[in-house]
Parts: sequence; structure tokens; C-alpha cells
Amino acid sequence: MPTRLFLYHTSEDPFAFPAGPGRLKLRLFVQGGQSLSCTVVHSDRYDSPGSELPQEMERVGSAGAYDIHEAVLRTGTGKCRYLFHIKNPAGEYMWYGERGISENRDQAGSFQYAYIHRPLGTILPSWSSEGIVYQIYPDSFNKGTLKGIADKIPYLQQLGVTAIYMTPIFESPSGHKYNTSDYYKVDPGFGTMEDLKGLVAEAHSHGIKVLLDAVFNHSGDTFFAFRDVLERGEASPYKDWFYIRSFPVCQTPAPNYETFAKAETTMPKLNMDHPAVADYMMEVAKYWVREAGIDGWRVDVANEVTPAFWPRFRRELKAEFPDLLLIGEIMHASGPWLRGDQFDGGMNYVLRDAVLEFFADQTAGPVRFMEQLLHQEALYNDQANSAMFQLLGSHDTLRFLTACKLGGRGWDHEATAVSRMKLAVFFQMTYIGLPMIYYGDEVGMEGATDPHCRKPMLWEAQDQNALLQDWYKLLIALRKKHEVLRKGDFRPWFTDEARNVLGYVRRTEQDKMGLIINNSPNRYQLELSNYRSDKNVLTDLVSGLTIRSAKQILVEIEPFGCLMLH
Amino acid sequence: MPTRLFLYHTSEDPFAFPAGPGRLKLRLFVQGGQSLSCTVVHSDRYDSPGSELPQEMERVGSAGAYDIHEAVLRTGTGKCRYLFHIKNPAGEYMWYGERGISENRDQAGSFQYAYIHRPLGTILPSWSSEGIVYQIYPDSFNKGTLKGIADKIPYLQQLGVTAIYMTPIFESPSGHKYNTSDYYKVDPGFGTMEDLKGLVAEAHSHGIKVLLDAVFNHSGDTFFAFRDVLERGEASPYKDWFYIRSFPVCQTPAPNYETFAKAETTMPKLNMDHPAVADYMMEVAKYWVREAGIDGWRVDVANEVTPAFWPRFRRELKAEFPDLLLIGEIMHASGPWLRGDQFDGGMNYVLRDAVLEFFADQTAGPVRFMEQLLHQEALYNDQANSAMFQLLGSHDTLRFLTACKLGGRGWDHEATAVSRMKLAVFFQMTYIGLPMIYYGDEVGMEGATDPHCRKPMLWEAQDQNALLQDWYKLLIALRKKHEVLRKGDFRPWFTDEARNVLGYVRRTEQDKMGLIINNSPNRYQLELSNYRSDKNVLTDLVSGLTIRSAKQILVEIEPFGCLMLH
Repeated sequence: MPTRLFLYHTSEDPFAFPAGPGRLKLRLFVQGGQSLSCTVVHSDRYDSPGSELPQEMERVGSAGAYDIHEAVLRTGTGKCRYLFHIKNPAGEYMWYGERGISENRDQAGSFQYAYIHRPLGTILPSWSSEGIVYQIYPDSFNKGTLKGIADKIPYLQQLGVTAIYMTPIFESPSGHKYNTSDYYKVDPGFGTMEDLKGLVAEAHSHGIKVLLDAVFNHSGDTFFAFRDVLERGEASPYKDWFYIRSFPVCQTPAPNYETFAKAETTMPKLNMDHPAVADYMMEVAKYWVREAGIDGWRVDVANEVTPAFWPRFRRELKAEFPDLLLIGEIMHASGPWLRGDQFDGGMNYVLRDAVLEFFADQTAGPVRFMEQLLHQEALYNDQANSAMFQLLGSHDTLRFLTACKLGGRGWDHEATAVSRMKLAVFFQMTYIGLPMIYYGDEVGMEGATDPHCRKPMLWEAQDQNALLQDWYKLLIALRKKHEVLRKGDFRPWFTDEARNVLGYVRRTEQDKMGLIINNSPNRYQLELSNYRSDKNVLTDLVSGLTIRSAKQILVEIEPFGCLMLH
Repeated sequence: MPTRLFLYHTSEDPFAFPAGPGRLKLRLFVQGGQSLSCTVVHSDRYDSPGSELPQEMERVGSAGAYDIHEAVLRTGTGKCRYLFHIKNPAGEYMWYGERGISENRDQAGSFQYAYIHRPLGTILPSWSSEGIVYQIYPDSFNKGTLKGIADKIPYLQQLGVTAIYMTPIFESPSGHKYNTSDYYKVDPGFGTMEDLKGLVAEAHSHGIKVLLDAVFNHSGDTFFAFRDVLERGEASPYKDWFYIRSFPVCQTPAPNYETFAKAETTMPKLNMDHPAVADYMMEVAKYWVREAGIDGWRVDVANEVTPAFWPRFRRELKAEFPDLLLIGEIMHASGPWLRGDQFDGGMNYVLRDAVLEFFADQTAGPVRFMEQLLHQEALYNDQANSAMFQLLGSHDTLRFLTACKLGGRGWDHEATAVSRMKLAVFFQMTYIGLPMIYYGDEVGMEGATDPHCRKPMLWEAQDQNALLQDWYKLLIALRKKHEVLRKGDFRPWFTDEARNVLGYVRRTEQDKMGLIINNSPNRYQLELSNYRSDKNVLTDLVSGLTIRSAKQILVEIEPFGCLMLH
């Protein structure tokens, strides 16, 4: 009897999901450190046993404790029956199906993907795959107003931005405005509805989309409904809009109602299971799209709102506005929200953690970094991965350059901080998903966590790091020019743990690009004979250098340098 | 560096799910064949790092390639952050969190269960946990009519049945009636709406609930809407109710429209993504509950209907009829339909496969049987497990007694068939979920698959196996008497692979029962000193025999015998 291995698969997202018409993508996790070949054997669910055809799976790479193998099945009917066939190095075979792992095919059973459904509304907006997103904290960007932001649209266009996401702009007593007073009103400090319309028009005329931030998990304690409950107590018709533990409602010394986080008195949690509250917020969500013509919502604390709300949110919004992008803020693994019935994408803090420890802290080497990339990508289906906001930082984190200065190996970590940030940006702009730039990062702004990461944008040339800014522009331009950087699959190429270097590949059916990152203060020599190019010439798109492909070539990469081989 | 293990967990159902107010149940899969101790370290999500408390996990047992460990966390806020701490026999520690497995706690990250939601409508009907379900094929039960069925309600009550589920009774040209002509009409061959009301009244007066079977995946080709498409082609207002590939619609030599299974011409697939079709079927579902007072729906081919429909189906039905039971027919692993937003339970064919190979075919021994039990239970949350229809057979399979006669080890498999079936019934009535009896199994009916499994019920005493029938009555009565058999946790106790014997335990906080099955033609001697009883007396509830608990006791179990120790 062959050694039993641990494999994991289930016939549901993100282990089985539609990948285009008549295509079903399968993912299989296989216990790491084994050298196995995996085949998937499949047929239509109603074909008789024995009609299954084998198809080789691709080993994508290691995600740490497990390897990822993938295959895309083609199906005419959308009804798939399949099981996996695993061969270990000793030539022993095992089957893995719905009933587990067995040497006996019948005992393994078959997985069943019942039917591929592709209802409208699961498709991404046509514009999103081109997205370079720029996050703005309105209070600090330019004069603290929407007009100020509108004035800087040409700046953003020059940078290469295609969408801006602004943290909340609705009336609220705070600077961050996550405690909403009036969901139907632009905060007077920021401007008016007309200013918002002007900003949207200005952005659109420069090919830039606009996303707003909505808070449906909680309101402010200044929201009319909560004020009414404060005043009228149990007699208020809004008492069930919140989770009030006892009456009268009190706010000191501690709130006797449920709040966001821990006793955030100014943020009473909304009862989104209450039909009237859900209806109210549904209308809010539609109002700003209809009236101001915005292109998407980023939704705050989406993970704590009743999951019953989001399918309705998506269904109703996408029916009326098919080109709207819906992004949920979930600061951890976001699978349940990204199966196609709720959000298009999320704020990818899990990716940020991996980027942070490799480039900024340097507490992880290339092997772990690559494992983490595959691990977090395997949390989601392809469509969700393509709509993740891939961020290096936000208004809720310390700034990336500050993290680079605080972290890093050796005595010169401050000296190499900008170089390491440049590598992280290189990675961000050559990775899957939608790169999101936090305002000011591109000019070298620094700051610890809130409030230090929310300081006024640096507009004076002498305060800005022009080299960093040029780097952003160059890489954004390259991403826009080469579809393979936006839409290609990501595959590991190599890791050199001792020398802190890694390579990966982006590929489509038509194109391929090799990316190399030298995350160390030493020069790195790379033997390129293994990199197959149909043409005899390779170009490094960053330096513009041409590499003539002989049988064997050595290229040199600078300390903290990178290559984009095409 | 300790050996890397493969573990699997994700912060979502069925690995993390609510288990009552303020309780979060966690499941962890751990690579099998290892002797590990697992601890979960947890806190509120908004507590500062370092405030996490450790809690030991329980090793439930082996499911083959992996072991299952579980824990129930108690949380005041419903917001949990946690990670697992694993110790191997060498005393080496590992952490497992959202970012994977690592010796370094920070690098492992934390899992996050965002918020425990308990919206109305996820709760099971008050009556279902007492359920002994009896499946009726109306054409064959008694005179082939609803009145005939009503006449036999006293018989069912005597047997101990608490709910009947009938395959479709709506107008249809076939015997099985899965190709519906009229969703609003009782088939004239079966009777009238008044007959159905009479049957429901008779059943209710005997404490028996009534479930009907609805087919929303496809209609009959005699359904008015499809007839209209056949007649008027592209001009029909119903042309988008189906998936017509080209016009005019043709049925021979092969249908040019999508059907159930493969070219089932009489069963055109319904486009349930079309709002008018979904509305129509929603009204059908409500109509029969309102008009006839039925207690639940079993839904045919639920896995192939657009998943967008089922949350609405549940929401609207449970809002109007909170005590309605909703069962989906999904003949394979049914996780996606049983997360709390769609069906209460399913038809458990995966369990049946395991029961079949252990008791009937005898191609699996007790180790694999126990592994399969844990494997399929781990597909679902506790609530779904408690509402699964646990069946030995149905109108879509060969009858269990026939399977026992065809299978089995040795020359005498026919002679032991009834004994092995009795053991399977013993298992069914002492396992979790809702036992479902296929009509006639209780009197020893035989038959291969459709149509042989759908023969007329045997009502004459000389055709019935009275001993088998008494066995059903005894075990149903014991299940009804002892809450622990209905609501207790299931835990493996022991397996004796060589002698084909196994034991398991059902337990609540108040009670405990030990069950032993000797699935072999040999007597079995069991040393009971390890079975702890607080009292000094154990009783076998099947034989009524009292076992005085000394320091060491030997009990003997008959060939194909069983014990129910209390």
C-alpha cells in the first residue's frame, strides 16, 4: 500500500470555478516536499463510467506546506465529473475523489461540479482590468476639498492613474468621516454635490474613474436615526436599526449598544438584517451613482455586515449600472465575499503583509515570499484575483517608505530604503490584480500609522522624490503598454535564497515576460540560457538594454536592481 | 526546523461556523498518521496582540488521509481572531494561521472570523429534530392515490414515522412525474387538491408531517410555457424561459434545447435566472404550503438550478412559514447548498455509499467505514448534519436488501443479507441526522434499480418480513425515547479490523450511549473495562440484558449482532 498523502480539493470556489465559457478551472493542494505527477480524469456528469478522459495538471509551485496543481477542463455541457490520479516517484498510484484518497478508484468516488452558471452581474466592468488605482484621503490631498482634488486630475493622469478611490466624503464630524452623519450629503468642509459632479466630470474627461467609500456596517452617532434613538429611546421607530442592549441609551462611561470595534461610541453598529435599514442603504448606494455618476464603491468593514445584504447589493447595483466596480474592505482572507455573488475584489492586505516582510522588513526571503504569493492567490478565483486592490499601504497602515526605513537587514537599511521601495513598486506593477497607490507614496511621503500616514500631500517639487516618481511613471507606462503584465498568469520562475533573488513569469497565450528582482545589496549574475525566447533577442524593458541571446548568456543585475525581460 | 505538516483550515463553513449563541465551532484537518496535540489560541478580533487565550482541541478521529480536530470557542462579541498551535511527538511546535504554517507565530498570521451572524430563517423547524422520515413513491404505495396513502397513515404511525416525503404528485404524463405538466394541479390519477388536503389532515392528526417534491430545474415538455414555445417558436413570450438553441424548436431526432441530463426530450431545462420563471416557481412553492398546509419541500436536482434562486427561495418561504423544512436533492457532496442560506439538509447519498460498501457489499472494513463517516460529516456544519436525510435507498437506487443479497463476503451472503440489513438499520437509527426509510424496505421488499425499486408496496402479511418490521419499530422507538440518539455528538470508539467489529459513542452533556456493531459471521468477545459508566450498571437496550459493571467484564456479541449500551 503506497504511503498516504494529504491532498485537498473541494468542488467549489476557489478549488473549482468557471474560467470563461465552457471552462472549469480546478486547483488541487498536494502535501509539499513530494515529487508527484497529477492527472485529472474527467467527463460529463451524465456520461457512463469509463468515458472519462485524462488531462495532465500543471504544478504551479509551492505555497509552503502544500504545492498547487491546476488544470482547466473544457466542457460542452457545464456539468463535470472528475477525480485526480496521483503518481509518486516510486510509481505508485492513488486516486482522489469526493470520498477521499484511495488506491481503489471506486472507493475514491468522483468530484462533481454540478453546473456552470454564468448569470449576468458576475462579470467585471469593462474598464477595470486597465486599472491603476490611486487612493486619496480627501482631507489631506489638495486644499482638503473636492475642488482641490479636481485641480489635481491632470497630475494624476500624468502619473498614469486610471481610477481614484476617495475615503468617505459624506457629512461627518470627524476628519476621516467614517462616522457618517448624513449619507445623502457631501461634507460641507469638502464641498457640495456640484463639486463632486465637477470632480467626476474632470476625472472622466481625463479617462479616470471615481470610486467612493461607503460605510454600511455602522453610522455615526450623529446620524438622524441614531439621534432619534438617543432622544426618544424605546419609543423611537429607529430603535431596531441598531443593536441597543437596554434603554435609555447611554454613551458614557461606556455605550450600551453595539459599536464598531470595541466601544467606539461614535460608531453604532447598524442592524443591516432589518429590511428598512437595508433598503435605506441600498438607496444610498444607488443615489450617488445616479446623481454623481461615480464608477464604483469601496465598502468599509464589509466583512462585519450581514452576508445576506451583499448579494442584493450586487444584484441591484449591477442590474442598473453594469459598469460599476464593487470592492469590499476585508483586511484578512476574503474568500467568502469574493465568490462572484458579492464583491468584485477586495483590499489586499494579505498580499501587503507578504510584500512588507520581503522588501521592507526583510524578515522573509524569496522562497517564503513566493510561497506567500501563491498562498494568497489560491484563496480566490481568477476573476477575484484580477480585481484585487494590490496595495503597499493605506490610510490604515504606516507608509511603505517608512516601513522600509524601519526594517531591512544590516546597518544601511535607511540608505537602501528607497531602493527597496522601488523594488516593491516594480513587483506591484508587474503582478496580477489592480495596483493601488496610496497618495503621496509616489513622491516619497513618510509617516507611521494613523494619524501620521494621513498628512498633507507634498506638492512642492523640493519636497518630492522625483526619481521615485519617475520610477512609478515608468512602471505604470510599461504595465499599460504590455497586456501580459495586466492579464497574464503569474508563475514562479526561480528563487535564490542565499543571494535573495527571485524571478517570475507573466504569460498569456500570445506573450511572455520574465521578471527578476535582486533584493540584496550585492550584484547578481544570472545565467540566462534557461530562459527560452523564440526570438534571438531579449530586451530589459526597464533599462532598455538589449541582450543578444547566444547559447549561454550572463547578465548582471545591480544591487537592489531588477530586470523585465521581453 | 521541524518537519512541515500539511494542515487545512479556512475561516468559513464547514471549517468555522456558529454553533449556538456566542459559540464558534472550528474544524482543523491534520495530515493523518501523526500523533499531534492541537491547541487553538484565540481572542476578540479587536483585542491587542498578546491577549489570546489557549484552548485544547479535541481529536475527533481519522478521516483517512487526515485527522479531524475540533474546538468550540466562546465569544461575547462574535468577532474571533485565532490561530492553531501544533506540537508533534518530538515536542516541536508549529503555528498555523491565515498565512500558512510556520515555526514563527507572526509569520503564520491569524485566522479571522469576522462576525457571527444569526439571521432569522437559518434555524431548523422545531419538529425536524424528532424526524423519522418515510419516502413514498405515490404510484406504488397504496392504490396509487393520495387517498390510498391517507388510509395507511395509521400504519406509518405504528411504525414510528414522523414525516412522509412523497415524490412528485403534480400533473404529469409519466409514472414518476418528474416532468411536470401543471405545477398547480394534483395529477388526476393520484386524486385532487381535496384528497391532498385530506391526506395532510390525516397525517397531522397522527403527528406526521408531509413533504412534497418540487422540480424547478426542468419542466415537462407538456408544461404550458414549453408547449407555447413548441407552437409559436421565437414569437412565444416564453422562449426565454428555456435554453432554446435555435428555432423552430424540434424534439426529434434530438432536442435543440437544453434538457435535464443528456437529451431527456421530455424535460426541458428551465431558465431560473429569468425573473419571470423564478417568480413563477416561487409562487408555486408558496401555493402548496398555503393551500394544502404541507410542512416541507424536497427539491429535485437542486444542484443544477441557478444558485441565485435558493437564497430567495429560503428567505421568502421561511419568512412566511418558519416551520417549513427545505431539503435539496444533491447526490454528491452538498456543502455549497448547506451553509445556512439555502437548504436545511440534503439527501445523503454520500453516507449511503459508505453504508452500502460496509454492510451490503462488505468491500470496506470498519476502519474505512469510520473514516468515511467522519469524512462526510466534516463536509457540513452541525445544523446541516442534523437535517440530512440519511437514506439506505430511494426510488433512484437498488433496494438495500437487494444490495445485501448481491454483496457480502463468502458463500453465504444471501443467508446473511437480512442480518446485515438489520445492522445497517441499527446504524441508521443510532446515527446523526434524520433517518429516511424508503417505503417497503421495512417489510423486506427487494428490487434492482428503477423500475424494480418502484414496485407496489407489499401489504399482505405473508409477503412481509415481520421480524425486519419489528426491528425497525424497536429501533425507531429507542431513537425516539433517547434524546442522545437524536441529538448527541457522534464519536468513534474502537475498530477491530481483523474481526470486522466497530464501536461508536453518541453523547450529549447529560447522556452517553455506546453502540457496537459486529459485522461478521463470528461471535465477538468484548472487554468492557474501558467503557466508563458513572453508574455500576450497563444495559443493552436492544436485548434488554443488564451487564453489571465490575472491574473487568466480557460481553459476547452474536454473529451480525449489535449492542446499545446505556
